[in-house]
Parts: sequence; structure tokens; C-alpha cells
Amino acid sequence: MIKTDICIIGAGPVGLFAVFEAGLLKMRCHLIDVLPQVGGQLSEIYPHKPIYDIPGYPTIKAQELIDNQLAQIKPFNPTFTLGEQVSALKKQEDGSYIVQSDEGTEIHCQVVVIAAGLGSFEPRKPALENLTNFERKGVDYMVKDPEKYRGKRIVIAGGGDSALDWTIFLADVAAEVTLIHRSDSFRGAPDSADKIQELAQAGRINLLLSHHLSALAGTSQLASVIAVNKAQETVTIPADYFIPLFGLSPKLGPIAAWGLQIDKNAIEVNTFDYATNVERIFAIGDINTYPGKLKLILCGYHEAALMAQSAFKYVYPDQKLSFKYTTVNGINTF
Amino acid sequence: MIKTDICIIGAGPVGLFAVFEAGLLKMRCHLIDVLPQVGGQLSEIYPHKPIYDIPGYPTIKAQELIDNQLAQIKPFNPTFTLGEQVSALKKQEDGSYIVQSDEGTEIHCQVVVIAAGLGSFEPRKPALENLTNFERKGVDYMVKDPEKYRGKRIVIAGGGDSALDWTIFLADVAAEVTLIHRSDSFRGAPDSADKIQELAQAGRINLLLSHHLSALAGTSQLASVIAVNKAQETVTIPADYFIPLFGLSPKLGPIAAWGLQIDKNAIEVNTFDYATNVERIFAIGDINTYPGKLKLILCGYHEAALMAQSAFKYVYPDQKLSFKYTTVNGINTF
Ligand SMILES: Cc1cc2nc3c(=O)[nH]c(=O)nc-3n(C[C@H](O)[C@H](O)[C@H](O)COP(=O)(O)OP(=O)(O)OC[C@H]3O[C@@H](n4cnc5c(N)ncnc54)[C@H](O)[C@@H]3O)c2cc1C
Ligand SMILES: Cc1cc2nc3c(=O)[nH]c(=O)nc-3n(C[C@H](O)[C@H](O)[C@H](O)COP(=O)(O)OP(=O)(O)OC[C@H]3O[C@@H](n4cnc5c(N)ncnc54)[C@H](O)[C@@H]3O)c2cc1C
Repeated sequence: MIKTDICIIGAGPVGLFAVFEAGLLKMRCHLIDVLPQVGGQLSEIYPHKPIYDIPGYPTIKAQELIDNQLAQIKPFNPTFTLGEQVSALKKQEDGSYIVQSDEGTEIHCQVVVIAAGLGSFEPRKPALENLTNFERKGVDYMVKDPEKYRGKRIVIAGGGDSALDWTIFLADVAAEVTLIHRSDSFRGAPDSADKIQELAQAGRINLLLSHHLSALAGTSQLASVIAVNKAQETVTIPADYFIPLFGLSPKLGPIAAWGLQIDKNAIEVNTFDYATNVERIFAIGDINTYPGKLKLILCGYHEAALMAQSAFKYVYPDQKLSFKYTTVNGINTF
Repeated sequence: MIKTDICIIGAGPVGLFAVFEAGLLKMRCHLIDVLPQVGGQLSEIYPHKPIYDIPGYPTIKAQELIDNQLAQIKPFNPTFTLGEQVSALKKQEDGSYIVQSDEGTEIHCQVVVIAAGLGSFEPRKPALENLTNFERKGVDYMVKDPEKYRGKRIVIAGGGDSALDWTIFLADVAAEVTLIHRSDSFRGAPDSADKIQELAQAGRINLLLSHHLSALAGTSQLASVIAVNKAQETVTIPADYFIPLFGLSPKLGPIAAWGLQIDKNAIEVNTFDYATNVERIFAIGDINTYPGKLKLILCGYHEAALMAQSAFKYVYPDQKLSFKYTTVNGINTF
């Protein structure tokens, strides 16, 4: 069991900044995110786009902001569990919480901060009848650890950046990579599309353009992926893993079942300390709602600062909090 | 009369960011500050100190943050009145306001945003009986435009950075500069103190250490400054201008008389849009108070964003506001 002061659900810009504000008050944080990387919407949806309304930055690329925030919290040594979804919160007799992930990870903490954005990013799944039968038996919706695929036969489906990038990457790792795409052109970056064509021409990947997915076959474990072309001709590709990469879309998910007051997919909080209706559970960033709420990164930063002041009493019930400027006091690590 | 959409009182970091948030919604801003420069506490009190809690900046010097904020708002062309204190707000029949300064400047606007920090920076004045008689008749508490002193005889008093820096600067501009300091050592930067000694040794300034101010003389206009040393010997220095530079301290000042709900020197606001109890008047940054309030720069940024959404209806009563991300829509100037 991981032990920490504050467990932060969601490692987007707001969850990351909460580590800083907590750290100033000597509270340790553990972050958990269903994505294999930190950065929330910024890293998942628009890493290369410039943002113009981060105060003090006339312009900054989304991923650069996340990188700077990681540098800013480094002194406080946050710990991370990535690629796991928080599925449940268990209240303990002493008021503390155990946060549980879908993979069985448990985190014991005094305070839970939900910085879950628009919800946990979940894969868009292809409409294949027996798809769910093969989940964890050969079907993966994200590449968490590429090493898993070393020496295996992989079928990837999709035409966006993830599908192209992982096909290119796994061409060097897997025994065999097939890329299936329903159109004859790609949505992903032109550079990557060119690289895919080169790999195909060099015989290093199998490329099936203008093919639709039609079925999966196998008994206990996935054995092959079946696709059809426009002429309704069937191709059967033997496969250890099938990875459909059709993008991720955020869903509120398990959070809806935690007894929190929810209004239109967001958690209701007060504006004094961004606490929810349940003691010791705060909600900050895009996931919360209150009168006047704006889903802006800079608003989440403010919410994180006020939350930390209030969380302090649960972590240090016997201490009086004193407010100090960083300019005067600097950063004191643990 | 200056005409604008929003008149912002106070050009500290929060007033400056309000220009950006207003600009995104196509509202023009005019800022007014009693200091001769923008930047509020950051530029006046701690320009060279690093701040650690600006989100996305592991560290940034206070003046650098202000410079970056000026670059960020440049597309929106804000206008400025510096070196003047706002003394009164006059409500017009149509609901708009005229903001008046102590020097008679008038600004007509639809919305007033008070971003006045800890209040307007006012000079600490030496205890000289007839000091106020000579205000605007030879006594200045700030150097707004150094050219005013060209070819004149100047007496500066003080031992901090401002006194040292302006003595050094005016040595090249004025006909004669005398620096009076009650102690025999300076509080200002050692480099500047060394430079003062050099200038004195080279006969380019008169330096009176361990001297106390005792009186001012003159009839309608200041004529001389009188100081005494420890032996109670009197020195009379002929002077066109006397500039005591004993630092600035913020005072709520005229704001207290505008009919706003005040609690402990701060203006009470709601957290929906940071409006005060008076329609069309908002208060953001250090000057406001509400449950949970933290006097942090990053909190003022959030307040500015929510204020702008609400101010919009007074500037564009017939338009519907639509909220757009800068990443998607960019910055559209006027
Ligand atoms: C195209 C686009 C452009 C934008 N432009 C701007 C802009 O210019 N300026 C601006 O201020 N904002 C902009 N935004 C909005 C901005 O991205 C969000 O306000 C910001 O990402 C919110 O940060 P967050 O940390 O609250 O949540 P997110 O960034 O959404 O991060 C939340 C994280 O929580 C994880 N999570 C959720 N539930 C669980 C769970 N149960 N278990 C584990 N992990 C979970 C998610 O996987 C996600 O990684 C834009 C958004 C988009 C999509
Ligand atoms: C030594 C020190 C260290 C600090 N360190 C930090 C830190 O690490 N992090 C942090 O977030 N904050 C820090 N702060 C606090 C931070 O400086 C303030 O939160 C910030 O300056 C508030 O910005 P503002 O724009 O609201 O007001 P201010 O910066 O105070 O600016 C207000 C301006 O309004 C003007 N004004 C007021 N009344 C009038 C009037 N009637 N007419 C004309 N002009 C008027 C004033 O002259 C002033 O220039 C520190 C403060 C100090 C003093």
C-alpha cells in the first residue's frame, strides 16, 4: 500500500499544480492517472498547440507548460501511478481514505483531491461484436509499456497520430506489425504518414488501407484479426495483440458513484476551499462546478491554492498554518 | 476626457492581467496608477526578488513577470495614466462612470475595476513642521520625470535604494545635488553606496552623513533645506527642490470614501464575478476580500478572468458572450 498525505486523482495541469501548493505546506502528494503520461488534456489532446492565456506567458505550447510545471514541483518529489483508473474510494474509521485503482493499487491518504478534468480518458472502441471478450486477452486500447509487445505479432487500427506513431515505434520492437485503416489517407502528421509508406515499401510493416475491421477470432486468447476491403474480400491476420487506436474521449466514469453532488458531469464545490459535500474530498480544475465557473487552466491554479490551505488541517490537525510568501520564504523541501 | 470601456485603478500584476482577459472579450482598458511605473508591489517593493509560486515558472524575478505581462497585453493596446492618484468616482445618469484623478484627469468608462492592491503607494514623509506648505512648491516625494530637475539645485534625503539611485542619476542632470542621511552608512545596495562615495570624493555631489533634517525655508517657493549634525551645528543648503525618499507605504486612501463595503482595509466582493456592492464596480487582487481569500498573484489572475465575463454585459449590453479557448481562437486584437 502506498502511503501519502494527499492523493490527487488526475495528473493534468491542475493536479500537478496542487502538488506545488501542497508542498509549500509540507504535504506530500501521490498522483494517479488513467493515461500513461501526465499532463491531462494538454498532453493528450493538444501538446503542440500554443496557449495564450497563461498569465505571464504571451504564448506557451501546452506540453512546454506541463514540462515547466513538472520542473516546478520537482523539489517536492511527488510520486505517480500512471495507466490506472481510480475506481473506488474507501473511507477508513479514522477519517482517512484508501484510493483504489482498477488494477488493485491502493493508496492510503488523509485527503483526496479530485483533479479529474473532464473525466478519465477512455478509448473509443471499434464496433466489433466480440471485442470485449478479448479485453486483457490480446486487445489493448493504449500502449502503456511497449516492451510488452517485443517479439509479438501486433495489429494496430486507426489513421490518427497515435496509430501512426505507435506503428512506427513498434516496427522496431514487435515481430510483425500490421496497420489497418478504413480510408486510403491518414489524419495524422504528414511526416508520419510518409514514414509509414516507407516502412510498408521496405516490407517492415503490413499496411492495409481502405480496409474495415470485421471480426476478432480466438478461443481463450486472441488469435487473429479479420478485415475486409471494399470488394468485400476478407483478410485474416494472425495476431497476439490487437490495438485499436481511435482516440480517447473523457468520461466521468467511476467518480459518479462516490456519493458526491454532481451537476452536469461536474462535482459541486464551494468557493471557500473547493471542498465537495464529503469531508476530506476536494475537487479542483475542470471537474468541479460552482457559480461563475470557467473551465480554464488559470482558474484551476487558484482553486488548488485555496484547497491546500484547507487540506492542511486534515494532514496536520495539531498545527497552526501560517501563510508565507515564496519570495520571502523560498521553497523548503521535505 | 479619456474614453474607454473599462477603467482599471492600479497597474499591478492583477490590473495588468485584467487587460488581457478584457481584451479577449473585445473590451478596451485604461489603467491609472499613482506610481510613476507599472507593476504594483512587484516593481516598487521587490523587482529583483525571485517568485516561486507563479504557475509554470519554477522561478521568475518579479520585474520579469511584469515585463512578460506587458508583452502579453500589448496586442490589446491598453492606455495608461501614471503618477496620478484616483480620488473620486462619479456615477453618470446612464450608469457609466467618470474616474477622476488628483491631477484633474478624467476617464469615462462603462465599468470600473479596482485592482488597487494594498492601496495607493504613498510616501513616508519626514516630520518637518512646514513640509506640507511646500508640497508642489519645491517638495516632491517621488521622481516622476527626471527632466524636471535639469539645471536645478536638488536636495535628496534618505539612505535606501531610491535615495541612492536618484542621487546617482540626478548628479548628471541637476546643477547641484546634495544627499542628506541621518546615519553614516546606507541601507541601499553596496554598489550604489560605493558609487555615492566616489561621486562625493570627485566633488560631483554634496554628501551630508549623520545629519538630521531640521527645517525648510522659503516664502511662496522652497528656497533652502536646513540640517543639523550631531554637534547641533546647522547647515543651510540652497535648493530649488527637496526630495525626501523614505520609501512608499500603501494606504487605502480615497477608496474608503466610495460607498463600498470595506472590511479591514479590503473591499468585500462575491466569488461569482468579484463584483462589489455597487453595480459596475469590481474589485480584484489584494484589494478585495471574501471567505478563503489569499493575497497571492495567481489568485488575482483568476479573479480577473471571472470579472471580465461579467463586465461584458455592461460594455456590450446587446451581445451574447461566447466563451472560447485561446488555443482554438487565438488572440484577436481591436
Ligand atoms: C482543444 C482545447 C483547447 C484548450 N485551450 C485552452 C486555453 O487556451 N486556455 C485554457 O485555460 N484552457 C484551455 N483548454 C482547457 C484546459 O485544457 C483545461 O481547463 C485543463 O486541461 C483542465 O485541467 P485539469 O487538470 O483540471 O484536467 P485535465 O487536463 O482534464 O486532466 C485530468 C486528468 O484526470 C484523469 N482522470 C480522470 N478521471 C480519472 C480516474 N477516475 N482515474 C484516473 N485518472 C483520471 C484524466 O485521464 C486526465 O489526465 C483547452 C482544452 C481543449 C480540449
Ligand atoms: C515582499 C513581498 C513578497 C511577496 N511575495 C509574493 C509571492 O511570492 N507570491 C505571490 O503570489 N505574492 C507575493 N506577494 C504579494 C503580491 O505582491 C501581491 O499579491 C500582488 O502585488 C497583488 O497585485 P495587485 O495587482 O492586486 O496589487 P499591487 O501589486 O499592490 O498593485 C496595486 C497598484 O494600485 C495602485 N493604486 C492603489 N490605489 C490607487 C489609487 N487610488 N489611484 C491610483 N493608483 C492606485 C498602487 O499604487 C499599486 O501600484 C509579495 C508581496 C511582498 C510585499
